[in-house]
Amino acid sequence: MKKRIITIGEVMMRLVTNDHQRFLQANHYNVYFGGAEANVAISLSHFGQETVHITAYPDNDLGRAAYNYLKKNGVDTSYISFLEKGRMGVYFHEKGSMQRSSRIIYDRFGSSFSLLKDSDFDWDAIFEDASWLHWTGITPAISESASSLCKTAIQKAREKGITVSGDINYRRNLWQYGKRPLDIMPELIANTDVIIAGLSDFENCIGIKKDSFEEACNETHKRFPEIKTIAVTRRISISASENKLSALLYDKGQLYISKEYEMSNMVDRIGGGDAFMAGLIYGLLFKNKQEALEFALAASVLKHSIPGDANLVTVDEVNQLVKEENLGRLLR
Amino acid sequence: MKKRIITIGEVMMRLVTNDHQRFLQANHYNVYFGGAEANVAISLSHFGQETVHITAYPDNDLGRAAYNYLKKNGVDTSYISFLEKGRMGVYFHEKGSMQRSSRIIYDRFGSSFSLLKDSDFDWDAIFEDASWLHWTGITPAISESASSLCKTAIQKAREKGITVSGDINYRRNLWQYGKRPLDIMPELIANTDVIIAGLSDFENCIGIKKDSFEEACNETHKRFPEIKTIAVTRRISISASENKLSALLYDKGQLYISKEYEMSNMVDRIGGGDAFMAGLIYGLLFKNKQEALEFALAASVLKHSIPGDANLVTVDEVNQLVKEENLGRLLR
Amino acid sequence: MKKRIITIGEVMMRLVTNDHQRFLQANHYNVYFGGAEANVAISLSHFGQETVHITAYPDNDLGRAAYNYLKKNGVDTSYISFLEKGRMGVYFHEKGSMQRSSRIIYDRFGSSFSLLKDSDFDWDAIFEDASWLHWTGITPAISESASSLCKTAIQKAREKGITVSGDINYRRNLWQYGKRPLDIMPELIANTDVIIAGLSDFENCIGIKKDSFEEACNETHKRFPEIKTIAVTRRISISASENKLSALLYDKGQLYISKEYEMSNMVDRIGGGDAFMAGLIYGLLFKNKQEALEFALAASVLKHSIPGDANLVTVDEVNQLVKEENLGRLLR
Amino acid sequence: MKKRIITIGEVMMRLVTNDHQRFLQANHYNVYFGGAEANVAISLSHFGQETVHITAYPDNDLGRAAYNYLKKNGVDTSYISFLEKGRMGVYFHEKGSMQRSSRIIYDRFGSSFSLLKDSDFDWDAIFEDASWLHWTGITPAISESASSLCKTAIQKAREKGITVSGDINYRRNLWQYGKRPLDIMPELIANTDVIIAGLSDFENCIGIKKDSFEEACNETHKRFPEIKTIAVTRRISISASENKLSALLYDKGQLYISKEYEMSNMVDRIGGGDAFMAGLIYGLLFKNKQEALEFALAASVLKHSIPGDANLVTVDEVNQLVKEENLGRLLR
Amino acid sequence: MKKRIITIGEVMMRLVTNDHQRFLQANHYNVYFGGAEANVAISLSHFGQETVHITAYPDNDLGRAAYNYLKKNGVDTSYISFLEKGRMGVYFHEKGSMQRSSRIIYDRFGSSFSLLKDSDFDWDAIFEDASWLHWTGITPAISESASSLCKTAIQKAREKGITVSGDINYRRNLWQYGKRPLDIMPELIANTDVIIAGLSDFENCIGIKKDSFEEACNETHKRFPEIKTIAVTRRISISASENKLSALLYDKGQLYISKEYEMSNMVDRIGGGDAFMAGLIYGLLFKNKQEALEFALAASVLKHSIPGDANLVTVDEVNQLVKEENLGRLLR
Amino acid sequence: MKKRIITIGEVMMRLVTNDHQRFLQANHYNVYFGGAEANVAISLSHFGQETVHITAYPDNDLGRAAYNYLKKNGVDTSYISFLEKGRMGVYFHEKGSMQRSSRIIYDRFGSSFSLLKDSDFDWDAIFEDASWLHWTGITPAISESASSLCKTAIQKAREKGITVSGDINYRRNLWQYGKRPLDIMPELIANTDVIIAGLSDFENCIGIKKDSFEEACNETHKRFPEIKTIAVTRRISISASENKLSALLYDKGQLYISKEYEMSNMVDRIGGGDAFMAGLIYGLLFKNKQEALEFALAASVLKHSIPGDANLVTVDEVNQLVKEENLGRLLR
Repeated sequence: MKKRIITIGEVMMRLVTNDHQRFLQANHYNVYFGGAEANVAISLSHFGQETVHITAYPDNDLGRAAYNYLKKNGVDTSYISFLEKGRMGVYFHEKGSMQRSSRIIYDRFGSSFSLLKDSDFDWDAIFEDASWLHWTGITPAISESASSLCKTAIQKAREKGITVSGDINYRRNLWQYGKRPLDIMPELIANTDVIIAGLSDFENCIGIKKDSFEEACNETHKRFPEIKTIAVTRRISISASENKLSALLYDKGQLYISKEYEMSNMVDRIGGGDAFMAGLIYGLLFKNKQEALEFALAASVLKHSIPGDANLVTVDEVNQLVKEENLGRLLR
Repeated sequence: MKKRIITIGEVMMRLVTNDHQRFLQANHYNVYFGGAEANVAISLSHFGQETVHITAYPDNDLGRAAYNYLKKNGVDTSYISFLEKGRMGVYFHEKGSMQRSSRIIYDRFGSSFSLLKDSDFDWDAIFEDASWLHWTGITPAISESASSLCKTAIQKAREKGITVSGDINYRRNLWQYGKRPLDIMPELIANTDVIIAGLSDFENCIGIKKDSFEEACNETHKRFPEIKTIAVTRRISISASENKLSALLYDKGQLYISKEYEMSNMVDRIGGGDAFMAGLIYGLLFKNKQEALEFALAASVLKHSIPGDANLVTVDEVNQLVKEENLGRLLR
Repeated sequence: MKKRIITIGEVMMRLVTNDHQRFLQANHYNVYFGGAEANVAISLSHFGQETVHITAYPDNDLGRAAYNYLKKNGVDTSYISFLEKGRMGVYFHEKGSMQRSSRIIYDRFGSSFSLLKDSDFDWDAIFEDASWLHWTGITPAISESASSLCKTAIQKAREKGITVSGDINYRRNLWQYGKRPLDIMPELIANTDVIIAGLSDFENCIGIKKDSFEEACNETHKRFPEIKTIAVTRRISISASENKLSALLYDKGQLYISKEYEMSNMVDRIGGGDAFMAGLIYGLLFKNKQEALEFALAASVLKHSIPGDANLVTVDEVNQLVKEENLGRLLR
Repeated sequence: MKKRIITIGEVMMRLVTNDHQRFLQANHYNVYFGGAEANVAISLSHFGQETVHITAYPDNDLGRAAYNYLKKNGVDTSYISFLEKGRMGVYFHEKGSMQRSSRIIYDRFGSSFSLLKDSDFDWDAIFEDASWLHWTGITPAISESASSLCKTAIQKAREKGITVSGDINYRRNLWQYGKRPLDIMPELIANTDVIIAGLSDFENCIGIKKDSFEEACNETHKRFPEIKTIAVTRRISISASENKLSALLYDKGQLYISKEYEMSNMVDRIGGGDAFMAGLIYGLLFKNKQEALEFALAASVLKHSIPGDANLVTVDEVNQLVKEENLGRLLR
Repeated sequence: MKKRIITIGEVMMRLVTNDHQRFLQANHYNVYFGGAEANVAISLSHFGQETVHITAYPDNDLGRAAYNYLKKNGVDTSYISFLEKGRMGVYFHEKGSMQRSSRIIYDRFGSSFSLLKDSDFDWDAIFEDASWLHWTGITPAISESASSLCKTAIQKAREKGITVSGDINYRRNLWQYGKRPLDIMPELIANTDVIIAGLSDFENCIGIKKDSFEEACNETHKRFPEIKTIAVTRRISISASENKLSALLYDKGQLYISKEYEMSNMVDRIGGGDAFMAGLIYGLLFKNKQEALEFALAASVLKHSIPGDANLVTVDEVNQLVKEENLGRLLR
Repeated sequence: MKKRIITIGEVMMRLVTNDHQRFLQANHYNVYFGGAEANVAISLSHFGQETVHITAYPDNDLGRAAYNYLKKNGVDTSYISFLEKGRMGVYFHEKGSMQRSSRIIYDRFGSSFSLLKDSDFDWDAIFEDASWLHWTGITPAISESASSLCKTAIQKAREKGITVSGDINYRRNLWQYGKRPLDIMPELIANTDVIIAGLSDFENCIGIKKDSFEEACNETHKRFPEIKTIAVTRRISISASENKLSALLYDKGQLYISKEYEMSNMVDRIGGGDAFMAGLIYGLLFKNKQEALEFALAASVLKHSIPGDANLVTVDEVNQLVKEENLGRLLR
């Protein structure tokens, strides 16, 4: 029951302030690594799946540390490139609290990943025995070559009949290399089976402007018949440490609605969406639609309790939360 | 008004992850010491009582550090043995958060305490001028000799007319030396005046299976006439950092019910039951039943705000909480 | 639109325990600096104003570290004295949690500031182009000479037609040099335009004992016609990490009432009142009364999310909270 | 030029005090993992070789963390067993300084590794394409089954014509399961090509008592003709942070002598011998004898500059030290 | 062979910068406790002796933490007073390095100890069964009442025929209460059997100005016939982390000279003199003069390897250093 | 005697590993800020001089933190620009030990400073009352516009008759914008009065290839008559924590030679050259040549004892080292 899942995308070093200090106060940073797609791979690896991540690092010890991080988390790193060119993307994270927002300063331009070319890979080897390819809208937003890399990966997967998922994840601050989302994204999305998208993603990336998720899904389904499944999480932000989280899943015309979780005393919300994505992939592979949705949501909830980008939980732990077992107990 | 109280039991080193990290992420551990019975002794020592703890440590500097820890907290360490044999019991603690449970990995087998013999002690000296003996169901579960040690202590206390309390504290994962709880516990409990027991304790340790605490108490009282007082805490676990806590006290047929506390932003729930026990001993020595119950519960609540196993609060601080004074204020 | 604002008062070193440890557990302390008036100056400096703080430090590297702290936060330190005499005032802070109060142990007697003389300053230079002077009731409570310093500053400001604000901030444990508040405070308050005062301040510092803020304001206004504006915050302490906060503003007979904020997962409430004061000064300088009150309250709320005494937020961040934008979101 | 090298042995968690604190002062421990044979594997992995480590961990998250540690360092973990039985071996390390010795408290009895059986493995798969097997005298000292496991591995390697190395590493405190070294070790050593042994190892493990390394080697060579190469390091301990290190290599009758390094300001000497062993294996595979000896020694010297058990250096870095390039410089 | 030894003196909180940071850089401090006389008591307690320390603390949790610190280290704390008056003395310690000196900023005036009165004690109880009293020249330098306390203790000890030792330890920055050393010290020294004194101590405290230790001893012996033994350490400061240390002992006309130790990579030199004193007391009680001197010096050397004021070593560890065994080795 | 000194150059964030960990082990980084020229400004500021630093930061809180860092250290920050464009340059620092080199990974391309234009400044205001301008060869190596900025600053200083110093500091890894050092540097150096240069600097930046410093100086003096003074430090690297340091000063044909310092237990060598430069500027302003050289060298030695880039020492401390007073003592 172990599936081979391919992910592709940049991994950055995250530097986080301590004790909810502001950037202005920081005299040391904790170090984590993360990237939307690698986070999905790591979570699926902890769910017992075979995962392969495709990325590039600078050929120095920061790159090697990032490489070791994936390896340690069970991801197959055979297809990771070390480039002489480019740098390790970094992002600084100021931990918010109460009504004060958390803040991120990205410093990712010129990364080795942004310089990676699709001709560098043996795509047949990568996709051999693979069941799934996952990409996000961050990759085509980074650079011309990253965009091309993403497109090639999707095409190759398509050719081999592998399921493709994409987290649209529109980020206004990226897209600085001369192309706009509407130039690039529709073609990528058109060849994707499962997408995560919110209203802003629909509008900015495929030009569908609707008032509700369901309407947007119906329209998307009409225009992009390849897309079978669309999901989204709903986050109500009460404070930096208190959110409510629920999710919706649209599958070929039918809408599934999850329960809602109250998350108080959140530890780290970064990677919450990626944890949902990983849970959804696992769920769609091994469960029915409603179960898949609940599994994905519970996985995402657990992520909020763990520092760092990755969701270091097992399938059992997620299932227990779905069944409301052992909530916050002391397990001896 | 200072009473001499004897406690007996193992003390372990606790190693705790930081920042709610999972075991998989830990690169350093904070060090605390604790053990159910020693926690009671330390709390009573901070309540101004004279306390004596009986235990054994390996004859190395880990043992001496554990010894110093008790000494620093005002516990009389004169009867602690340093053994060439055995090791320091250790437990690893992963701090949960939100809906994610806290987890403990015990590594306590083969401890010096488990090898301690009852013939090693001058019981008359220990119990001279003593008012109270406290034991828990962990000790008889550890090893044959620990079980025998516990039994001897109870008998000696009985002979001298000293009040005996026992926290039944049934732990399925212990009891690995060939005896079952029902082989051992009934005899120990029969000679105990005050017990802490929940439904699972009644069932597993004295074979009384009932649907409610009160019924179980009535039945226990019938079968074990020596037991005068039975108490229990009620914990509703909303999340790893949010619990509700209340308590019940049964005394010779009468049931006392406490108020309920909402505990949010809990710092450390380990030792909460021991803090209740220490509060109950103090309360039963110096207050009436209802007051004793409320004192014990408030003591337990305060423990949840302090890192480490022990309840480092004064009688005044507990009384203030009972009276709802200074709740969470900034005291200058 | 940049105003020059003068503050005067002692700055202390704050030593804070970690992880909610009690003083009894502390093996290291985090270092912050703070003082009621300097906290106001720093906050106004982060609001883009020109601020000048008047104080004295011992002529050693602890004093220089405190000096650098103000400099780093944009405060003009030209009028800070380094004295051979006296010491750096210190306060130790034990972080509470849940129902357990936070506690402060002050160790501030004999500080260099308490020995500072008003003849040491060129008041004309200090107040040149200044728009505002801020003092608190802590200064006259410290020593005879500090009281005299405060009085001189107020008189000089008055002579130059500069607005004066005072946070009455009655502290019973100070006032140990032989004078009582009623000997000193009425004269200082009589020359102040804007005060922060609660019922206990009115009673102890100007002898007005009333049941409500509004009554006390009316009476104060009658007796001290110079006082135009009086404000106060209302704090409901649910626990050490959960408070509700609202505020009232009285201006020449009219009462303005703020909304109320729920503050859960508070990081550090010390300096919350000073953040309100800084917000109020900013608001009264640049906004209407109701807006000034809401701005001051929102500023204070944000302070509770930041470790240390000072409110390191911008005008934009406060305005966003007033407008309820970005509450606890993740800003990329 | 990449060789496949198999290592077999226990991996423990190391808990280290901070700032040269004694165990009596420790309030937190830094966490590392290590084991004599795994240290060799990791170092060889950083030298670019393919390494496979054979061990067992308890089936809990401490075991998984130890597993991830090997994976992250490039070791093939496919043959690691997770057992329900047994525990994670632990050792506590007090960092010495000056004339004060460093101290280790082992807590390794009953580990999962000590319970591992040789029948659990597919030895053919393990040794396929392998060039080298490395074992140490710690494994046969741990338990009957560990001893048997070691013997089987050596035999299988012998059958397949794979080079075998063994670090004799006699430890008096182990060997507690009823057998003595002379009962077990001669047979294992007899089938080993390359050994590390000092005078105490010769005496205790093969009963050869001589006054010099060379004499002992000659005698060993006579009695155990299979042993071609014998090496040893010479450490002169001036203080806990200042040592001199040199080494000798005996190869079929010829003695090679290394230069001597002065090591001051040592960071961590644990694992220094394993770093030598890894360097020696690399050297014997790819260099002549004298070069192999110098490479091994330089590798060991570098290890003393790195915290933790493992020698995280590259072949280039070792070669530079051999050539005395860049000694302690700042490489930009 | 266990002796009861009484020490008297102030205990302060020490706050130390990290990583050799200067005070100007400190954002956190490590906490230790220490005082010249208490350091002697703790060291003797770790040497297996019964020790009693006489001091006073402020009646707050900083005082209680200091009290617990002594208790944890085996010192009898029964005669420690908690005073409403006064404060906890503090000293800030900036760790030097290389040619840069370490620096201390004392903040000890007005401590509770400086306010302690000799009438507060039951001297007969304190000295019952005691063998030794130790004081230092710091106590009479602190305040009039501390001076009187010291004098009373010496007189009482004299009356009971108890050996008295005194570390003259002249500190120019103390002595601020109106008396000069020559007003006070001669009388105290005249009743002391064993003193530690250097040339500056002889000159400033008993007015004996000589060019060599031996001459000063001869003259002292002539004028103060009660003084039988005088010792001193010789420190050559090569850098903040490299010193040479030797010592001299004068006993009734005869001079004993120790060997010299090279101390490189020193961890903490504060308390080195107190460690010597404790070693000397132990040596004079249980060894001959030359052995006593070597034991005292070796004890002092070991102290330099341990962070904090106290010498946490055993008699065995000191004896091993005297015999040059295990120098800086790794003891498994 | 206070001089106004202008410095110009990039400031980066430095992220340093802990405990001599390698990059591969880092899970947190300590944060410092530094830049060759700003380091000079800060040191001169701690020497009591008025310093102005010219640089640019990105307009975010990382930039503001860097800005505050200069302000806190007494540097006039009025001419610092906050740019929308560009990023904060970062460098990662792995602390070496023993024979293992320290390593730096620069990540500085595209910094805000590299985008700064010379037209952005009011040079007349900057140089008003200034005595000195200091630049380094790093600035012209960064970008075309930085090079132009440097050239303009030197020209303006020249026009106003201000002394100019330059630390040639050739870095092969910079110079990536299309120009080579020999295209740019000769013109800048020709207008500089005081330079720091080693043999590689002479060769690469002005094309003078000689075998000795003195010959190179003579030739330089001949070709660039404006250059009056040339200095250089001589570092012998025994290990990462042990160096010897001496220096040479050439002044109009005469060579001055310093003493040599042994530096063992170095804390941080980064910034050692900048500390020398600052000491030299101070020395040339206020002392004779030989004294200036010794002052500069002693200042540099002290820097090696302080973590971070900047030399936080006073003129008194440097003078004491020159006079060999208080070497590594404990100053109370």
